[in-house]
Amino acid sequence: MCTLEKHGDVFVLTLTGSSDVDEHRFGPPAIDSILSAIAKAKAEATPGSALITTSHGKFFSNGLDLAWAQAAGSRAGARERLLYMVESFRPVVAAMMDLPMPTVAAANGHAAAAGFTLALSHDYVIMRRDKGVLYMSEVDIGATLPDYFTALFRAKVGSATARRDVLLRAKKIKGEEALRMGLVQAAYDSEEQVAEASMRLAKQMAGRKWAGEVYAEIRKSLYPDLCGVLGLDIRAVVSNSKL
Amino acid sequence: MCTLEKHGDVFVLTLTGSSDVDEHRFGPPAIDSILSAIAKAKAEATPGSALITTSHGKFFSNGLDLAWAQAAGSRAGARERLLYMVESFRPVVAAMMDLPMPTVAAANGHAAAAGFTLALSHDYVIMRRDKGVLYMSEVDIGATLPDYFTALFRAKVGSATARRDVLLRAKKIKGEEALRMGLVQAAYDSEEQVAEASMRLAKQMAGRKWAGEVYAEIRKSLYPDLCGVLGLDIRAVVSNSKL
Amino acid sequence: MCTLEKHGDVFVLTLTGSSDVDEHRFGPPAIDSILSAIAKAKAEATPGSALITTSHGKFFSNGLDLAWAQAAGSRAGARERLLYMVESFRPVVAAMMDLPMPTVAAANGHAAAAGFTLALSHDYVIMRRDKGVLYMSEVDIGATLPDYFTALFRAKVGSATARRDVLLRAKKIKGEEALRMGLVQAAYDSEEQVAEASMRLAKQMAGRKWAGEVYAEIRKSLYPDLCGVLGLDIRAVVSNSKL
Repeated sequence: MCTLEKHGDVFVLTLTGSSDVDEHRFGPPAIDSILSAIAKAKAEATPGSALITTSHGKFFSNGLDLAWAQAAGSRAGARERLLYMVESFRPVVAAMMDLPMPTVAAANGHAAAAGFTLALSHDYVIMRRDKGVLYMSEVDIGATLPDYFTALFRAKVGSATARRDVLLRAKKIKGEEALRMGLVQAAYDSEEQVAEASMRLAKQMAGRKWAGEVYAEIRKSLYPDLCGVLGLDIRAVVSNSKL
Repeated sequence: MCTLEKHGDVFVLTLTGSSDVDEHRFGPPAIDSILSAIAKAKAEATPGSALITTSHGKFFSNGLDLAWAQAAGSRAGARERLLYMVESFRPVVAAMMDLPMPTVAAANGHAAAAGFTLALSHDYVIMRRDKGVLYMSEVDIGATLPDYFTALFRAKVGSATARRDVLLRAKKIKGEEALRMGLVQAAYDSEEQVAEASMRLAKQMAGRKWAGEVYAEIRKSLYPDLCGVLGLDIRAVVSNSKL
Repeated sequence: MCTLEKHGDVFVLTLTGSSDVDEHRFGPPAIDSILSAIAKAKAEATPGSALITTSHGKFFSNGLDLAWAQAAGSRAGARERLLYMVESFRPVVAAMMDLPMPTVAAANGHAAAAGFTLALSHDYVIMRRDKGVLYMSEVDIGATLPDYFTALFRAKVGSATARRDVLLRAKKIKGEEALRMGLVQAAYDSEEQVAEASMRLAKQMAGRKWAGEVYAEIRKSLYPDLCGVLGLDIRAVVSNSKL
């Protein structure tokens, strides 16, 4: 589940859980909660808004709620639940790509599979250097990735060797290496520093007072293949009153 | 406006203006002038040709002639003129991609928006370290980018974070940073050094005596999405008389 | 021609020739031999398999057998033979992309044109630092590249400037530079070290006991454009018995 607060111009979406070791798994209720929070931020957006997504505790998110899938009791039922979550989560990534404001993931803890995917759906990712790993577990788990996961990594990770190490080698990546691989913008030594740096970056971006609709369309124009997979159109927009 | 001179095997296309602070804005006359110069170089090309594009004064080019657009007197008129320039400039990028010889942009000064786009349409970009910035101003101005601008940046800038910083953050990029981001091949401390290095590189490439048609087709095959947006076909060519 | 041996879980495909300076040119017999070896490895694959491709002597491979093409005696005949080899070699790259196990090219010697392409068709490339170059000779030879060659370089080389230097500048690239350009994973000072490092990497990957079918599909999902050109489908697969 998540909360949405506003600190000045900056929306803060926080993944919350029952304890400090809650993995923030994305089952149907959590996905609905995140979608609602993003929709609320979008509805309340003004030029000069920004959004930070962060989390409580040890995990940013360990991904889809596989335990809920397995609890279906049969392999067919588990597959059906897994596919249901995969399709329910697609609009989350789409909403992030379409959000009319700069976005920052403050990844304080572990981010795996759909959790890593959510982080990478933001314009900027800041993580901890001392704790937390990024990890795409699919090849280890024995399942291919949803098309929009791979499209996102192709869109957001320029290095072909980094993409291979993440998706085909299931590398567990800490802060320094994530920086070198171009997966994150910065890494810090504590939760406080990650929070401060993320807020600083969000405020700096908000201070540019960009027109949200133009911002979102330029973002999408950077990633046409991903937008195709997500079902998002890319439009030409001029918000400048002189043009 | 521009001139075209030939120094040995090297064509030199120079963006000229009324003074040292002329921004070399691309309005209809400048676009026609550049298209004619590129067409002339293409018509006179031989194996062992190369082309350098450079400029006089402080600006390489600050982009399309927005003042001319605004002078239309109405928002609808300004939009019409802007779209006219955007479509008139498309063949410039297409002609650069199709030119049967290696190309070098000697970006002595500021290169913004369509000016940066023109520079990046060359095979190699050399800029000044001490002066001059690269800058895509669209998100600051409040307008999305033409499809072939974003296609060019996706084609020519491998780093996803560099693409984001250029297009979605409107970063003003100086020489050292442009090198680190993979936007330019080299940066030098004076106009003379940029000119010398560009000529050296152009002559070195010319010295390879590549078959121009093969060269242009291999260039296009590197950027199929961009060529699609530009309406350029990619063909198989063998110029080797033994094959 | 080539041999296929098995060392524990690791298949070793070795390009062999008549002497230490055999260029391992890919004419019709060599292409058939390689295709058979890859098919055999695929047929015998188990979770925990891996494949190394290496070579005897000075050359990994200098590419297609142009001498055989020229021996046709006419330009038309040479063109026909060249096209025949280009199309015969396409299934080799396709088979490498579809192989249900991690793959390592141990490029001990020169790898040019289709030889470089074969190396880059592997998940990992390890080369010598002291000897051997990577070289795409097409622009020097005066011929455009097959569509699947350029698609492979676009898929496997993230840096746009590296792609340009390889394909449009025909740069001859040694170990250190290949590392910097992201073309290889490691470079070593002797044939023995290359062999040892390749076997170590192959065994490490084999030790992950990945489900081969999932591995191959994730690999293909990294390179959808290349798979399109190669005629390979990308499918969703779950091998995990709990899902």
